[in-house]
Amino acid sequence: MSDFHDVAKNGLSTAELEAVLRRVGTERYHNRHPLHHRMTSGGMSKGELQAWALNRYCYQAVIPRKDAIILARATDPAFRAAWRKRIEDHDGEDGWSGGIARWLHLATSLGLDAEAVKGENLALPATRFAVGAYFSFCANATLLEAVASSLTELFSPVIIGERVPAMLAKYEYITEDTLAYFSRRPEQASRDSDFALDYVLRHADTPERQQAAIDALVLKCDILWAMLDALQHAYQAGNIPPGAFRPEQES
Amino acid sequence: MSDFHDVAKNGLSTAELEAVLRRVGTERYHNRHPLHHRMTSGGMSKGELQAWALNRYCYQAVIPRKDAIILARATDPAFRAAWRKRIEDHDGEDGWSGGIARWLHLATSLGLDAEAVKGENLALPATRFAVGAYFSFCANATLLEAVASSLTELFSPVIIGERVPAMLAKYEYITEDTLAYFSRRPEQASRDSDFALDYVLRHADTPERQQAAIDALVLKCDILWAMLDALQHAYQAGNIPPGAFRPEQES
Repeated sequence: MSDFHDVAKNGLSTAELEAVLRRVGTERYHNRHPLHHRMTSGGMSKGELQAWALNRYCYQAVIPRKDAIILARATDPAFRAAWRKRIEDHDGEDGWSGGIARWLHLATSLGLDAEAVKGENLALPATRFAVGAYFSFCANATLLEAVASSLTELFSPVIIGERVPAMLAKYEYITEDTLAYFSRRPEQASRDSDFALDYVLRHADTPERQQAAIDALVLKCDILWAMLDALQHAYQAGNIPPGAFRPEQES
Repeated sequence: MSDFHDVAKNGLSTAELEAVLRRVGTERYHNRHPLHHRMTSGGMSKGELQAWALNRYCYQAVIPRKDAIILARATDPAFRAAWRKRIEDHDGEDGWSGGIARWLHLATSLGLDAEAVKGENLALPATRFAVGAYFSFCANATLLEAVASSLTELFSPVIIGERVPAMLAKYEYITEDTLAYFSRRPEQASRDSDFALDYVLRHADTPERQQAAIDALVLKCDILWAMLDALQHAYQAGNIPPGAFRPEQES
């Protein structure tokens, strides 16, 4: 396990910075989390999958808002025009024909009530705190850091490639229709992460800014990791906090 | 377990509102958390206690900042004069002679390095997200909600009364000097929570404001609970996330 705290202190070439950013993903992206392996191995109960979908909805729902905050902070119209596509992807034409709607479909296909999912108040407090930290970071850190925190998308095709075939194979009640959300994401994420990576590599032009970009990506990995930690503690180990979603008893 | 979501919808008398607020504490304050019982039963390893002290430091350190945000939002000079005492309590005369310094003393008495504790970057990400949620809430919710979120202090004399004698009895390396932080807190917390409770009862004068005050206290309990959940998952169950404090191997 690397310590990324001082990795840029002597300055990195563009290629070196890209290599460090990719190494953050290799070491700390949430496809390394035990709960991801439990999911892909077929070991999760339906209640655990419901809890995952319900909690992850809070993350999906904040994405276009954090992208709007980034849009609001960007002074370059060309940057805004490119970044705006992210909001369109998640909200769709009418708010409910994009990625958020597809995630909601995933959740309801698993048996959850749409209003309960959209209300978000059955999610784990820890999920809401992690998601709130992401939004606050994009609002309060530098624009470079906010963009760098989106670079987990560099790694999302990997986790989707692990997750989708395994879920289709291991859970009889999960179909391609359930997982329609993921069919669009690799292409969108590649387009978006290419743009964001190029931006970060061009704008992280001092050791301090390089370190800030690396730290932002580490923070984002911490956010995704903490969300799975909270799910594992609540629904695998059985420590559901007061007020949070409780799966129905399964036979 | 009560659902506090709609409890004020028909309006509550002052006495009823106070009773609901106290019931939030009875049901959801973190003296109900299994990790608190593990602590008071003597079951925690020294590494777990170190992790608790190190993580809780992040909470202690944000208290005067969230109180300063409340101060900044208060237009009544008399309110500010009363609330200001909280900042004085935590920072002391010179920043390092109040509650934060006493918490740091607790942490170093357990064998932690002061700079590592103060740096906060070995704390669990989940701790930082929960603490950040508290700060953001006090900055962005109404002043009434921010004040109501402080009402966990109504219950802190109880948890301190459970914690201190048990820790002195169960852990040979813990002395009254280690726990000096707690000797001042009950008196301060009583003074502060009397003031805050009076404020909330006088200003929560519609069903909507009553519900907002109740929800704020529930949220604060969720924050404290999530901090113990994260510690339990990481240090009792052994799922320490990347980058977080790792206790030395104990013999």
